[in-house]
Amino acid sequence: MQTGSLSANQLNFSGGPGALPESVLQKVQESINAIPGVGLSILGISHRSDWFQNVVSQTEKNIKSLLGLDAQYHILFLQGGATQQFSMIPLSFLEPGQTADYLNTGYWSTKSIQAPQYGQQFNTIWSGENSKFNQLPHNDNLNFNTNAAYFHYTSNETVEGIQFQEIMGLDSVPRICDMSSDFLSKPVDAQKFDLIYAHAQKNIGPAGVTVVIIKDSLLQQANPKLPGFLNYATQIKHHSVYNTPPVFSIYVVHLITQWLIKDIGGLTAMGQLNNTKAQTLYDFLDHSHGFYQGRALQKDRSMMNVVFNLPSLDLEATFLNEAQKLGLSGLNGHRSIGGIRASLYNGLSLEAVEQLILFMRHFQKTMTQRGET
Amino acid sequence: MQTGSLSANQLNFSGGPGALPESVLQKVQESINAIPGVGLSILGISHRSDWFQNVVSQTEKNIKSLLGLDAQYHILFLQGGATQQFSMIPLSFLEPGQTADYLNTGYWSTKSIQAPQYGQQFNTIWSGENSKFNQLPHNDNLNFNTNAAYFHYTSNETVEGIQFQEIMGLDSVPRICDMSSDFLSKPVDAQKFDLIYAHAQKNIGPAGVTVVIIKDSLLQQANPKLPGFLNYATQIKHHSVYNTPPVFSIYVVHLITQWLIKDIGGLTAMGQLNNTKAQTLYDFLDHSHGFYQGRALQKDRSMMNVVFNLPSLDLEATFLNEAQKLGLSGLNGHRSIGGIRASLYNGLSLEAVEQLILFMRHFQKTMTQRGET
Repeated sequence: MQTGSLSANQLNFSGGPGALPESVLQKVQESINAIPGVGLSILGISHRSDWFQNVVSQTEKNIKSLLGLDAQYHILFLQGGATQQFSMIPLSFLEPGQTADYLNTGYWSTKSIQAPQYGQQFNTIWSGENSKFNQLPHNDNLNFNTNAAYFHYTSNETVEGIQFQEIMGLDSVPRICDMSSDFLSKPVDAQKFDLIYAHAQKNIGPAGVTVVIIKDSLLQQANPKLPGFLNYATQIKHHSVYNTPPVFSIYVVHLITQWLIKDIGGLTAMGQLNNTKAQTLYDFLDHSHGFYQGRALQKDRSMMNVVFNLPSLDLEATFLNEAQKLGLSGLNGHRSIGGIRASLYNGLSLEAVEQLILFMRHFQKTMTQRGET
Repeated sequence: MQTGSLSANQLNFSGGPGALPESVLQKVQESINAIPGVGLSILGISHRSDWFQNVVSQTEKNIKSLLGLDAQYHILFLQGGATQQFSMIPLSFLEPGQTADYLNTGYWSTKSIQAPQYGQQFNTIWSGENSKFNQLPHNDNLNFNTNAAYFHYTSNETVEGIQFQEIMGLDSVPRICDMSSDFLSKPVDAQKFDLIYAHAQKNIGPAGVTVVIIKDSLLQQANPKLPGFLNYATQIKHHSVYNTPPVFSIYVVHLITQWLIKDIGGLTAMGQLNNTKAQTLYDFLDHSHGFYQGRALQKDRSMMNVVFNLPSLDLEATFLNEAQKLGLSGLNGHRSIGGIRASLYNGLSLEAVEQLILFMRHFQKTMTQRGET
């Protein structure tokens, strides 16, 4: 069995599911045989056990602690990904005759707007479609509807590599945010939000669990007639154990929040590390004399997903091929737009970014010498 | 890190999530660090990778092969558990003005009937409530509605420990079955069914994924207006990768199906082994001079969940306490009815049953000598 360092394996720049920290993977690995001190596999332990109930409540506490949230907020661990939230939100909070404001800033916010709405009314108050989603709006440029049932946006667009630097919307309208790809990657003024959701498979765990944070004042307005698995209030009442939850995935989120608090030292430190990783790579791109061209406007660049192009499609294909051979994995851009994407989620180390840059420098030099540019 | 035999750990008789085979757990453990031959952690691999697409298609094939199903059937891996299926089924197949027939045979079929139905009409054509769900009906005693949109039943009731020995319903009405707790535990004439669903966490994997098998002729009748994550046709079109699926859980199901085919030798062999495990324990109960009393009528006893009582609540508490000390875990009955329950899912060995019986024999002898009965 392989138990050595992950450095023997590939470096994972995938857009998601993404890399998780090695120290957490080691704890996960141990728990497959038997959770230390429990003597049962994490795959076979009851979701009604005291041990698991404690994992859930401790993970709720960790997330509240990391984000500075008080008792006004509830933390949920649900199934179905962000996609399920795209439907649950309007089903829960948009009554007949009401409208909701949405920003269309890229691939994922487009999906949030396209989810079947049973004739419900969404207002797309801004769309970046004409600029191919390479930039983001600012609060000053937007006309928010003060009577909207809620306002929804996506804090980071993984496909296009753009990320908001400010909190969007009005304080007077419930603010809902899809933070799937930058949740717990940096400090955020979470109390400004009424609902935050994030699937785990970027920064905080494996696929199979979605964290939802909901303010009690918004919860009071939720449609009570939805079936239990789609009903925020029912799920909260049962502390995410309305029916059998994804025990394993929640346990990994638990370990990641422990790692963030104890090993990393909180979200300020995590944010600094993620910022260093991204700035190091963007600086390299910006000094490549145009060989590597960042896709997004500089002001809107994502710290999570560095999306760029090479001078030709052929060079991009060669680049991906050579990178893969060297164990630099998952660098292909999203299938909808192509190009190159280096995703730098919490679990990816600064050393991995430095290895990527070493390769990129060498690749550029070789191709330039060959006259391929 | 613990890498030794599971025999150093507890034996898991939990009602679910349940025990998984040790050889499968070892493969899972290895994949946490890096999937052999791939070099990426199972927790960080892309759901769009060729490797994972192959896992999905191979697992579909394995399930079809184990159950002898042809191209008329689709295999899905969904989230949300059986609970989500309780709602998806009527939302998909029950049009206004139609009715569906349900059997109410225990805790879980009661749940399937209570799921919010938006005013839809269910006919409960039989209920075991008055006999405290200790027995099951036979086809001969039931009045099925020949014009029902579908007929739904639960093949095994985990809480009460009763299991159908025959396939229920009419061939002329779509037959839908919740097989969550006996799926792939024995041979079944699967072609008699139009839809089978089973969450993984009893016999085939960890919590977090639900297998759905659906016949194409029933699929054609499904409501097309449901959102993608609740829409069988959308999910089938995308081979369970409509949005990010629970990659890890599906991988474990893959390993279990491989184990069933290659190590066990198919469902006939699995059924024989499960039958031996259950019969050995039931025989012991039946020769305990009434110290251990099986809850279900003999003819309807479950091969998966052996539910029994001791002469007093005090003795049951002592029994559970002593068993736990010896590493016999998860023997408490479901919180709704109490008592003792030994769940004997695929992953639990015959040796574990024999160890349980050794303990039970010793416990009975000791308590009888002390005059506690």
